[in-house]
Amino acid sequence: MAAAVKDGGEEAEQIVNPWEVASTQGKIDYDKLIDKFGCQRLDKTLIDRVERLTGRPPHVFLRRSVFFAHRDLNDILDAYEKGDKFYLYTGRGPSSEALHLGHLIPFMFTKYLQDAFKVPLVIQLTDDEKCMWKNLTVEESQRLARENAKDIIACGFDISKTFIFSDFDYVGGAFYKNMVKVAKCVTYNKVVGIFGFTGEDHIGKISFPPVQAVPSFPSSFPHLFPGNDSLRCLIPCAIDQDPYFRMTRDVAPRLGYQKPALIESTFFPALQGETGKMSASDPNSAIYVTDSGKDIKNKINKYAFSGGQDSIENHRKYGANLEVDIPFKYLGFFLEDDDELEDIRTEYGAGRMLTGEVKKRLTEVLTGIVERHRKARAAVTDEMVDAFMAVRPLPNMFN
Amino acid sequence: MAAAVKDGGEEAEQIVNPWEVASTQGKIDYDKLIDKFGCQRLDKTLIDRVERLTGRPPHVFLRRSVFFAHRDLNDILDAYEKGDKFYLYTGRGPSSEALHLGHLIPFMFTKYLQDAFKVPLVIQLTDDEKCMWKNLTVEESQRLARENAKDIIACGFDISKTFIFSDFDYVGGAFYKNMVKVAKCVTYNKVVGIFGFTGEDHIGKISFPPVQAVPSFPSSFPHLFPGNDSLRCLIPCAIDQDPYFRMTRDVAPRLGYQKPALIESTFFPALQGETGKMSASDPNSAIYVTDSGKDIKNKINKYAFSGGQDSIENHRKYGANLEVDIPFKYLGFFLEDDDELEDIRTEYGAGRMLTGEVKKRLTEVLTGIVERHRKARAAVTDEMVDAFMAVRPLPNMFN
Repeated sequence: MAAAVKDGGEEAEQIVNPWEVASTQGKIDYDKLIDKFGCQRLDKTLIDRVERLTGRPPHVFLRRSVFFAHRDLNDILDAYEKGDKFYLYTGRGPSSEALHLGHLIPFMFTKYLQDAFKVPLVIQLTDDEKCMWKNLTVEESQRLARENAKDIIACGFDISKTFIFSDFDYVGGAFYKNMVKVAKCVTYNKVVGIFGFTGEDHIGKISFPPVQAVPSFPSSFPHLFPGNDSLRCLIPCAIDQDPYFRMTRDVAPRLGYQKPALIESTFFPALQGETGKMSASDPNSAIYVTDSGKDIKNKINKYAFSGGQDSIENHRKYGANLEVDIPFKYLGFFLEDDDELEDIRTEYGAGRMLTGEVKKRLTEVLTGIVERHRKARAAVTDEMVDAFMAVRPLPNMFN
Repeated sequence: MAAAVKDGGEEAEQIVNPWEVASTQGKIDYDKLIDKFGCQRLDKTLIDRVERLTGRPPHVFLRRSVFFAHRDLNDILDAYEKGDKFYLYTGRGPSSEALHLGHLIPFMFTKYLQDAFKVPLVIQLTDDEKCMWKNLTVEESQRLARENAKDIIACGFDISKTFIFSDFDYVGGAFYKNMVKVAKCVTYNKVVGIFGFTGEDHIGKISFPPVQAVPSFPSSFPHLFPGNDSLRCLIPCAIDQDPYFRMTRDVAPRLGYQKPALIESTFFPALQGETGKMSASDPNSAIYVTDSGKDIKNKINKYAFSGGQDSIENHRKYGANLEVDIPFKYLGFFLEDDDELEDIRTEYGAGRMLTGEVKKRLTEVLTGIVERHRKARAAVTDEMVDAFMAVRPLPNMFN
C-alpha cells in the first residue's frame, strides 16, 4: 500500500491514506508518520511566532498539538510578516448527512486561522469524489454537499472572505484547465505509489487527485484572485490528506506555481479507543452534531473507552492510564481551560478523580459545543448557503 | 496493444486505435477490423434505405464505401422512419493549424447527414486531449481549436442546427457529471485493454476517455436537449475512434442512457501509399487546405504513389495496378461523377490512360475543392466562430 509506513524488521505497519487509517500497533505513531511523509513537526517556536504575528493566543488545537505537523508554514509566516497575505484552502467529502465532532475539527481551526490572519478561504466539497467512492448518485452527493455546507457555515465563517464550492457545480474553466495541467505531470505508476490504486479501481478514482490538487493554485479561482498567481496557499487538514498535497507540491514548480503550505492534524479518536479515525458506519463510535444531550451522555457513559482501573481500590492505588483514556483525550481537544485540564490530568492520573467524574465533565463540555452548533446551524438558511457558494469576487477578503 | 487485430498463427498484425494505425501487412484489412471490433458492414440495402428516407442521392462517401461500417444505424433509421429524430456528434483533436483533406472527410460527410436528415449536430474540439497528448500549452491548444473551428464552419454547417464546443471552454456542469458517471463504470484494467495505456502514461490520458464519451448523451447538453434524455445519437467518425465508442456503448445502459450509433470511415491514404493515416509531421504526405494550386500539382506529381508500370510499353501492356494507385484512390474519394470514375478505372486499368493524365485530372479536382474551401474559410469571421460556439438553445434544430 502506498502510504504504508513500515518498520524495518518488525511486523508493525501503519497505513494512512485518504481512505484508510490503520496500524498493526493499534494506535498511529505520529512521529514515524512525520518522518515517512517528510513533513515537519509544528514546534513551540512556530506556535509562539503565530501568536506574535496574529496578536492572539494560539488556538487550543495548536497548544495541545492537535495540529502537530506542517509543510512550509515558516515560509507563509515569513511572507506574512513582510505584508504578503495568503489564502486558506480546506474541504470536506460529503459522504454523510450528519457530521461528528471529528469532522468539525478542521473547520473550527480554519475559522480561527481566518480570523487571526484575516485572509480569504476556499472550501471544497468533493461531491464528485463521494459519488465515485461511496457509489452515491450525483443528486444525493450534491444534496449532502449542501447539507454539510450548512454545518460548515455554522462554524462561523466570514461570508466576505469565504467561498464554498461543490465540484459538481464548479469544475470547469480555469479550474478544469489546471486539472489537465496537473494530470499531465502525474503518471499512473505515480498515483499507484501515492494512493495504492489497483487495476480494478475505476478511472474516476484515478482521475480524482488533480481535482483535490488544484484549489491549491489561485488561478483556479479567477473570480477571487485574478492575475494573482503568486498568492500562497495554506491548507489546514488531517494528515491523511497529505498524499494529495505531496503530489500537488511535487507538480507545482513544473507548472510555475507556488507549492501549497500545510498544517496537519492528528485523527480524532473513536469513542471505543484510539485506533484511527471514527467510522461513519458505526453511529456509536462518535458524537454527532445531531446528538441530543441524552445521546451524548449515554454514548460517553456506555462506549467511551476508560483508562481507569477495574475497581475503585485499584484506581485509587494506580490511577487512570491517560495514554488510552478517551474521556481525558476528548477533554484535551475540547476543554479550553488549560488549568482545569492540568488539574484533571493530575487528579485522574493519580486515581483521586474517578472515570465517572471525568465522563460527567466531558458530557457537559460536549453538550455545550453540540448545543451551540445546533443553534448556529438552525439559523443557516438556504439563501445563506447560496450566498456562500455564489461564484463572486470578494472585494474585502484581505481586510 | 489494445485494439491490435492479430491473426492466429500468422505474423500479420494490425494496430488501430485513436493514436496509432499500423499494419505489418502494409495496408489495413478493413474486413478483419469489422470482425474484430464487432461492428457491421454498411451494405447496399442500408445505403438504399438512407436514399429512400432522405429523398436524396447517397453521398459519394457512401456510394464508394468510404464510410463502410456502422453500429446500430438500422435502429436510428427505424426510429427516423417513425418520426423520431436523432442528433449527430463528431469532433476533432486540434493538434495542427492547417487541416489536410483527410481531416475534412468526416466534416464533409457530417454536413451531408445534417442536410439530408435535418438534425442537430454537436462538434467537440478536444483541445484538452491535444494539450495532454501533444504537450501543447492550454493557450496553444485553445488557439488551434478556434483556427480549426473556422475550417469546420467553412464546410457549410447550418448555424441554426450546430453547436461547436471546445472541452476547455465547455467541460463542467451536466457534462462533468456525465464524465464522472462514465468514469465510475470503467476500470483501469478496462481502459488498458481498450486503449493500450501503460503505467508510465500520465493520468490525464487515463482520465480522457469519458470526455470523448459523454457528448454521446443528450443530457450533456442541457441547453440543447433539456429533458430529452432518450434522444438517439449518431456519430460519424473514422474507425480509429471506435474504441472510445465501444467503451461508451458498454457503459450507456448502466447509466440508463441510449447507446450511440456509429457510421465509420476508412482512413484517407497518404500520398506515398496506403499504409494508414496521413502524418501531420510530414507536410509532403498530404494535401493541405492551405496548399496553393502549384503546391497541389507538385505534391501529386512528385509524391503520389503510382500503380502505373515502369515504362510506357509495359503500361500499355499490363495497365495500372489500381489496388495501390494513389491518384486513382484519391479520385475515388473526390471525383463526384460516377461515370467518369468508371471510365478512368477501365482506361487506366487497361493501360490506355497514363499516370500523368490521371494525376492531371486529380490536380484539377483537388485544386477546385481546396480553392472553394479557402474562399469559404476566408469568409468565416471571429464573430461567426463565437456564434457557433455560443452556449445557446437551438429552437429550430429539428426543422
